[in-house]
Amino acid sequence: MRRVDEARLRALEDREAIRNLIASYGPLADSGDAEAVARLWTGDGVYAVDGFPEACGHEAIAALITGPVHQTLMARGCAHVLGAPVIDLDGERASARCHSVVLAKAGEGWEAVRVAANRWELARTPEGWRVTRRDNALLDGREAARALLAR
Amino acid sequence: MRRVDEARLRALEDREAIRNLIASYGPLADSGDAEAVARLWTGDGVYAVDGFPEACGHEAIAALITGPVHQTLMARGCAHVLGAPVIDLDGERASARCHSVVLAKAGEGWEAVRVAANRWELARTPEGWRVTRRDNALLDGREAARALLAR
Amino acid sequence: MRRVDEARLRALEDREAIRNLIASYGPLADSGDAEAVARLWTGDGVYAVDGFPEACGHEAIAALITGPVHQTLMARGCAHVLGAPVIDLDGERASARCHSVVLAKAGEGWEAVRVAANRWELARTPEGWRVTRRDNALLDGREAARALLAR
Repeated sequence: MRRVDEARLRALEDREAIRNLIASYGPLADSGDAEAVARLWTGDGVYAVDGFPEACGHEAIAALITGPVHQTLMARGCAHVLGAPVIDLDGERASARCHSVVLAKAGEGWEAVRVAANRWELARTPEGWRVTRRDNALLDGREAARALLAR
Repeated sequence: MRRVDEARLRALEDREAIRNLIASYGPLADSGDAEAVARLWTGDGVYAVDGFPEACGHEAIAALITGPVHQTLMARGCAHVLGAPVIDLDGERASARCHSVVLAKAGEGWEAVRVAANRWELARTPEGWRVTRRDNALLDGREAARALLAR
Repeated sequence: MRRVDEARLRALEDREAIRNLIASYGPLADSGDAEAVARLWTGDGVYAVDGFPEACGHEAIAALITGPVHQTLMARGCAHVLGAPVIDLDGERASARCHSVVLAKAGEGWEAVRVAANRWELARTPEGWRVTRRDNALLDGREAARALLAR
């Protein structure tokens, strides 16, 4: 046993907080909690979802959840499942890359209606880690989506 | 470097143990290990799976794995894939929320035959963290399933 | 507050590093980064993918990414999504078990073209944790795949 570097413990806590933050997105989105989804981002955070106008700030991000596309999906039955993120910590900043899959009820089963690449930019704030930008692009063969997953 | 709060290390270990416990469910279920699946729960733990009678205790939970529905799925080829859980620690107790997706072989590919919301209640026991209750509800548009994912 | 066992912190860091290593596979594969995929393995590491000849060493593993099957999937649009791994640490070695799902663009949506069981063997190296062997078998009802997920 010896004294442990505070920085090592802090790095583990940071990664844990970031993982929990990203894991929160799907359950919050699928329970329709627009306010809590928005507050995963900083006040001037950006959520650039493929196929939608870029959403800047809490009000615009919340509107993606209260809007007709998401509400129709929820009524049909949906799951926003995120893959395990690769997290790169860099002091007070971090980035993460992962897949996202939206499954929606269709007949007896469910179908994958969106499969996307995601890159998250995050910052440590007085309230904890928050998303400053999330880019999302459908993995439909375009280079732009593949680039989001690149190291 | 300075002395590190034991509580911080303990919290990280708790979250890691809970994550590993939840991640164990799918591989154990899909390998047909009924006994090991059951022992993820406490002796009086409850597994309330949508569409099945509530299973209380190890024998009843193991019977879900040895029963005809699960055995038929295994023979067909199946994967019980769990999404990354959001974990809320509260001392000797914890809760977690995540998606679950059951994929089953169908023709040349696989189809999603169950997509569900899950809420886990957990407790620290002398043998480590165990599930005291898991509620599972299909995400088919009903409010009950969405409520399981709510903070 | 008291002195903390270095071993406990090290174990957490090891698990975090292994989780990040495994989570890297999908984003690197789907961005077509053959070299970085290969370097997740040790120099003499083995990747035994169901339906392909066993790949031994960096060159052979990279060839799985640059090869026609993977390149065709990428052009079509694909996601190699890995489930959360159950990790068993054993000093300088570790193993992990998880599901993998390959989703590919088909018509308006995506379909699951591969759903597999995976067992990873890992080793601590001077460059960090690396994969020494990954076995992958399709969950199509065969016992061999189920066995990879067994404890």
